[in-house]
Amino acid sequence: MTQTKPSKLAELLRRGEIFAVECPSREILKHVTSRWGVLVLVALMAGTHRFSDLRRKVGGVSEKMLAQTLQCLEKDGFVRRVSLPVVPPHVEYSLTPMGEEIGRKVEALADWIEINLPQIMEAQRGA
Amino acid sequence: MTQTKPSKLAELLRRGEIFAVECPSREILKHVTSRWGVLVLVALMAGTHRFSDLRRKVGGVSEKMLAQTLQCLEKDGFVRRVSLPVVPPHVEYSLTPMGEEIGRKVEALADWIEINLPQIMEAQRGA
Repeated sequence: MTQTKPSKLAELLRRGEIFAVECPSREILKHVTSRWGVLVLVALMAGTHRFSDLRRKVGGVSEKMLAQTLQCLEKDGFVRRVSLPVVPPHVEYSLTPMGEEIGRKVEALADWIEINLPQIMEAQRGA
Repeated sequence: MTQTKPSKLAELLRRGEIFAVECPSREILKHVTSRWGVLVLVALMAGTHRFSDLRRKVGGVSEKMLAQTLQCLEKDGFVRRVSLPVVPPHVEYSLTPMGEEIGRKVEALADWIEINLPQIMEAQRGA
C-alpha cells in the first residue's frame, strides 16, 4: 500500500480511509497485544533483562516463542538487544524510548481488563 | 481456572502468577484488539449507530464479521444492543460506560501506533 499521512483512527473513519490503517499498523498492534508480546513489554518496563531472566519471569513461554516475540519487538524498534562480547555469551534486552511509550499504552489496556475482570465476567454471565 | 483477585500485570509478574491472567482476560484482549474490534469501538465512541451505519463506516467488514464482533463486545458488557419494536426492524448499538472506558484505552494504543508509524517503519527498515 502507499504510505499515508499518520492520523488518528477516528479521523480516518470519518474520512472513510480506514483501509489505510490495515497495513502495516495491524501487524504492529498484533505484536504488542499478542499473548507473549504484552507480558514481555510489561516485564521489560521494570528494566533490562537477560534472556534467561525474561524466560523465568514470563512463565510458560517456550524458548522459541520468547525469541520470536523479542525479534518482532526489536524489528519494530521497541526492544534493544545488546550482545556483550564475553564468554559465555551474555545478551541483554531493554525497551527503547518508543518501546516505553507503547508499553505504557499496552499496560494501561491490559491492567484495565485485569482490574475490571469481575465486572466483565458478571456481564458475561448475565448476557 | 479459579478466579483470582484482580491485580496489575506487573504485580502478577512479580509474584509469578502470570498464568492467572491467561484466561479469561486473554479472550477479552483479543476481542477489543481484533481487526474489527478496534474499529467498531472507535466508531461507536462517536455515538449510537445502526447496524447499516456501522457497516458503512467500518469499510471492508462483512455482515457476518460485523455481527460476530458486535456479539462478542455485547457479551463482554462493552456494547449495548437496543432493538426498537418498529416495522421494519431497527437495531441500535452504543457503548456501555465500561465500553467507553476500554474504548479510550484501545483508541489511545491504536492512535499511538498510527501517529508513530513513520518512526516504526524507519526502525523496521534499519533493523
